[in-house]
Amino acid sequence: MPRYKLLIEFDGSPFVGWQRQDNGPSVQQTLEEAAERLCGQPVRLHAAGRTDSGVHALGMVAHVDLPRAYPAGKVADALNALARPAPVAVLAAEAVTEDFHARFSCLERSYLYRILVRRAQPALERGRVWWHARPLDAEAMHAAAQTLVGHHDFSSFRASECQADSPVKTLDALDVARRGDELHVTARARSFLHHQVRNMVGTLALVGRGKWTARDVAAALAACQRSAAGPTAPPDGLYFLAARYPESVPNTAPDGEE
Amino acid sequence: MPRYKLLIEFDGSPFVGWQRQDNGPSVQQTLEEAAERLCGQPVRLHAAGRTDSGVHALGMVAHVDLPRAYPAGKVADALNALARPAPVAVLAAEAVTEDFHARFSCLERSYLYRILVRRAQPALERGRVWWHARPLDAEAMHAAAQTLVGHHDFSSFRASECQADSPVKTLDALDVARRGDELHVTARARSFLHHQVRNMVGTLALVGRGKWTARDVAAALAACQRSAAGPTAPPDGLYFLAARYPESVPNTAPDGEE
Repeated sequence: MPRYKLLIEFDGSPFVGWQRQDNGPSVQQTLEEAAERLCGQPVRLHAAGRTDSGVHALGMVAHVDLPRAYPAGKVADALNALARPAPVAVLAAEAVTEDFHARFSCLERSYLYRILVRRAQPALERGRVWWHARPLDAEAMHAAAQTLVGHHDFSSFRASECQADSPVKTLDALDVARRGDELHVTARARSFLHHQVRNMVGTLALVGRGKWTARDVAAALAACQRSAAGPTAPPDGLYFLAARYPESVPNTAPDGEE
Repeated sequence: MPRYKLLIEFDGSPFVGWQRQDNGPSVQQTLEEAAERLCGQPVRLHAAGRTDSGVHALGMVAHVDLPRAYPAGKVADALNALARPAPVAVLAAEAVTEDFHARFSCLERSYLYRILVRRAQPALERGRVWWHARPLDAEAMHAAAQTLVGHHDFSSFRASECQADSPVKTLDALDVARRGDELHVTARARSFLHHQVRNMVGTLALVGRGKWTARDVAAALAACQRSAAGPTAPPDGLYFLAARYPESVPNTAPDGEE
């Protein structure tokens, strides 16, 4: 069956998360129902990552097998038309070979975490940022973040419900930068544990407020237990930014590609 | 009575607009009720400009007279706490003399209009941009916009309900610039007619789509009737950006200023 790679933006606020669940609407269900209306039979979407309730995406990647071939642009347009009014947008679609798997072919995932640092609560960006009324020391946070980069047992930053086989992961980058009245934390790794980014951000915020030092962060990492690290940052500020794949995999056009 | 100048951000989506109306919640009512709870008696806010339902503000300016003096920072914090959960934020407050009037002292108002130009509908920026699925020629729009700059009779861009005494205004600047996948239209003038920015943007969009030329825009202006110009752009993309005042007026601290 023809396979399509989809690049997806969504506002996570009204969803229980990416994955289908019984307790509310999910992004997966929204797009699967749109695809089913397009092709007349149930289909399944596979995503590069799962996101929690309230977490957003600027560049989620998923794939879907459709029972017949369509021009890729038609797939994007049809899913967008059929998903409305849900706040989900298919930014691009391309036909790929069956070698491509949005989850298993993914070489690297990246996340953005936005923290609004100002006295007044967010009005326009409510639900899109983590609000801190008091100053945060971005330089100290960035320096402390570097103690987490590398190959480590991340048990201290792992949710109890995490289903990963191992808590050992390689964190490729964790950067904290000032952007106007916001701090932007960006994280890159082949894969992340459940809540890993939010737990790292919650811990770095302790450094930003001057309560913790980089040495405390290193000690929390070494402790290998969740209670040793800081609190979980709220989902509002988190965005699935991008998924990277081997260059040879996508862009192979089967029949029906436009 | 001590007068305070307020700098205000708001998400216009849930409001009938700035001004109090019978048919729903307004920003003015939200802040007046917060101020009343702060000082125990009814107060009145005066804003630099009125905004329509769905129009946002990044930097609206208003003033309010309170029955007694408070440190300015307290006024902002208290209004923010009491206005929640409405999507309104007082970014700054300062004590000013009674010479200062948010509406009558204002030398210049500026607006931003955001147009999202991409095939897929907005997901994260829904209600915050005007979505155009087809390309717009930003350079042609900017060039055509220059025919509107200057001292003109803007009757062709004036809503029928407009209460201004005269349709003659001086438009100081109207710029169209690309920002990633958005076009940002910025407009500056001492004052604007009702719907003037949205009507100018709707007209420039005709130029962007290649349907109109700069000469058509000039002819529409010269016709001095609303039917000669293009449609009214939706409120979603419009932001009250800033209000400028004489430098000597504010920053004078009466008793109670911190």
